[in-house]
Amino acid sequence: MATPAPPAPITDPASLAALLAAARAELPDVRLLTEAIDRESYRLDETAYLAAGLPGAVALPSTTGEVAGLMRLASRFGVAVVPRGAGTGLSGGAAGIEGALTIALTRMDRIVEIDRGNLCVVTQPGVINAQLKAAVAAEGLFYPPDPASYETCSIGGNLGTNAGGLCCVKYGQTRDSVLGLEVVLADGSVIRTGGKNVKDVAGYSLTHLFVGSQGTLGIITEATLRLRPAPAPRQTLLAFFDSLEAAGDAVAAMTQAGLQPVTLELMDGETIRAVEDWHHLGLDTTAAAMLMVESDAPGVGAAAELDRAEAACATAGGREIVRAADAKEADWLRHARREALHALERQGTVRMEDVGVPRARVPQLLRAIERIAAAHGVRCATFGHAGDGNLHPNLIFDRDDPAAAELTHTVRDEIFRAALAMGGTVTAEHGIGAARREWLPIQRGEGAVAVMRAIKAALDPQGILNPGRVL
Amino acid sequence: MATPAPPAPITDPASLAALLAAARAELPDVRLLTEAIDRESYRLDETAYLAAGLPGAVALPSTTGEVAGLMRLASRFGVAVVPRGAGTGLSGGAAGIEGALTIALTRMDRIVEIDRGNLCVVTQPGVINAQLKAAVAAEGLFYPPDPASYETCSIGGNLGTNAGGLCCVKYGQTRDSVLGLEVVLADGSVIRTGGKNVKDVAGYSLTHLFVGSQGTLGIITEATLRLRPAPAPRQTLLAFFDSLEAAGDAVAAMTQAGLQPVTLELMDGETIRAVEDWHHLGLDTTAAAMLMVESDAPGVGAAAELDRAEAACATAGGREIVRAADAKEADWLRHARREALHALERQGTVRMEDVGVPRARVPQLLRAIERIAAAHGVRCATFGHAGDGNLHPNLIFDRDDPAAAELTHTVRDEIFRAALAMGGTVTAEHGIGAARREWLPIQRGEGAVAVMRAIKAALDPQGILNPGRVL
Repeated sequence: MATPAPPAPITDPASLAALLAAARAELPDVRLLTEAIDRESYRLDETAYLAAGLPGAVALPSTTGEVAGLMRLASRFGVAVVPRGAGTGLSGGAAGIEGALTIALTRMDRIVEIDRGNLCVVTQPGVINAQLKAAVAAEGLFYPPDPASYETCSIGGNLGTNAGGLCCVKYGQTRDSVLGLEVVLADGSVIRTGGKNVKDVAGYSLTHLFVGSQGTLGIITEATLRLRPAPAPRQTLLAFFDSLEAAGDAVAAMTQAGLQPVTLELMDGETIRAVEDWHHLGLDTTAAAMLMVESDAPGVGAAAELDRAEAACATAGGREIVRAADAKEADWLRHARREALHALERQGTVRMEDVGVPRARVPQLLRAIERIAAAHGVRCATFGHAGDGNLHPNLIFDRDDPAAAELTHTVRDEIFRAALAMGGTVTAEHGIGAARREWLPIQRGEGAVAVMRAIKAALDPQGILNPGRVL
Repeated sequence: MATPAPPAPITDPASLAALLAAARAELPDVRLLTEAIDRESYRLDETAYLAAGLPGAVALPSTTGEVAGLMRLASRFGVAVVPRGAGTGLSGGAAGIEGALTIALTRMDRIVEIDRGNLCVVTQPGVINAQLKAAVAAEGLFYPPDPASYETCSIGGNLGTNAGGLCCVKYGQTRDSVLGLEVVLADGSVIRTGGKNVKDVAGYSLTHLFVGSQGTLGIITEATLRLRPAPAPRQTLLAFFDSLEAAGDAVAAMTQAGLQPVTLELMDGETIRAVEDWHHLGLDTTAAAMLMVESDAPGVGAAAELDRAEAACATAGGREIVRAADAKEADWLRHARREALHALERQGTVRMEDVGVPRARVPQLLRAIERIAAAHGVRCATFGHAGDGNLHPNLIFDRDDPAAAELTHTVRDEIFRAALAMGGTVTAEHGIGAARREWLPIQRGEGAVAVMRAIKAALDPQGILNPGRVL
């Protein structure tokens, strides 16, 4: 297929001013932020190392109708739009575009319905992941997706990026929990892509396409999400290793043995020390790697699963294997794992990457990351969802040193090349966003990207939805 | 969005003759069927009640390169193409189009690789589902999707329709097991949409879009499918009820209780009697409904799960609840359930429908089906995947009586309306295909269908891929 070039979106001040004037007249209830100091808060997401533009204005709609109205105006005046959730993204997907309109969905924060009989929840996009989890837990139900930022990230952002997290290894990514969406398209029209049916093959699966498209194809204004009955309380095991490879071998052995832990996380020595330094958990700071394995199997299943995990760790050379004494200790360990990024950020600016490989290749990827970072003398701390083959190498550098920033870029590119050579991906759960665009055709091939561009052009012919992101 | 009208595909004999001449010259290894007697076998799929066209020619390629070559020629000469698997579809999606080229993928029947370490299999589309299952089972692995036709249907057809089956209630539909595809596009270019990574968010999820698109967006020539470790042997329970509603209540109670059976199937009295009549299993032919519940939970979990299922059935009024004595008896019962359609076909032409509703509404849907069929005096036997909310009402009629055929059409439309009024779907696992096209905009809305048409036009601007199907 030929690759159509997307038209350049308009971000000139006159078009935006015309849009704002029309919005004030036609959509009086939409909150608009136009002062520089207010707009500044919408410049960055959590991709701290990435430069971003200052939005020309920020709109805070409260209803689907208002989002539709804003998109009709954006379409009429040709103004570029950045859809944004809670701003916790790690690919620059919701970061500002200079002079464009950011539409933040934070005010659409209502859980519409918890449907126990059909095991699903209908929610607006601005609801925080942890709030949704808590609300359904109160009904004895479970919403699995749990990005590390779950206490601050919103469902809309989770849908936009197809967010992952700690329990994907058992329960999948965000997309796997979505039954249907309400979406506002580029021209302001509103569609629904599904409902409460767990099986439904009527037409193309637009639900799956919109999830993960990072606001480039439409703006999600409501979602119907699949729930599960609350699983048994988790049991937790920690294993410490003298080498990253030994930990990687233990992960591979658990996959081979058919274990289905709910969490199978890895931290390297740098990360262990940064977490310990902050949280004083009594972790073994001389270890080269730590695995955290959790089971939520019912009845005696959890203990049996952890016995098998313990055997795999011991065989791979685990030198210290301990189990959390109780649920409180396990919660605290999980919290510490989630805080790994912030623990590292106390030591410098962190460039957090998000590579993935087919699961059996985790030991090989760990070796490659270590080798590449060492060769360039860059500090690297790696943690991640080893059970999925998804690792986060964190390159720690001094933001005020341009050479250091440049060097992390080189290291990143080499890690990407290594992951792709193993059949891997440059992003397992954070998204291409603005940060990894040039790698999309390298990973997927020009032909596949041409298909994506054709879909983008078909749905957003003016190219106003989050231009320069993903594609 | 505006709805672009798809261009009319060309099926004139001169264009096809030019394509065939070029194929003989440029693709000498592609087997071509041009005799009417050979082409006749490719007219119908298993949608017995649906009229279909006679293909102008049938091509049987053996390689991706040959499929690509055929599509380049189809594109050059503007010839409409019907991609076809084993021909077991139930929506007319692979049935012939008069004068068009059918490309049958049956010769691409090689399992390329079973990758134990990464729990996946790479396969060509012509492999039969049961053969794939058996090959991975020999390695201690499990490929879940199991359409009732699994002994004769092909993986390519399963991918095209996002086929379901008996174990979706626990393991999802075909799409949930797909990691990546190789696809030949309308213009003959070849793309890959993923690989062996279980988490990969690089760009739009083309994998999910192509699965279920019934050959209207591209031809799948290879797939990487996710496997699971082989689960524990199943334990099986049968429960008989005096009314359909009581059985529906038991299903709803099991969902509410959070059971995760691997199979939760329903048969009504008509179906029980047809199956018993053929297979002499000793089923209770005076019952109005039967549920079949299976668990593959590990260890003591299966027996415990069936105990809870039994309690739910007893509370709902189950009058006879029995467990299969051993794996052989359970296999035989499952086989009998799979043969339900063929048992009914011994009694007349069967129009098998495929409606779905949110799970809690199964009792309501059962009531509606019974009421509608009775009101029109049409014989109806219902069975299906009650645990998913997916029921198959089978309208039994005399093919040679045009009024009877017409009447089943009326009954079908009323059942569709009833399902949609409950938030359901006109097709849960068989596909829109050729059989349910006019219902797509009614179910999804014109706006959503306009998006599908825009995607179709972007990927297949000539409209040569399976025209008149799905959209």
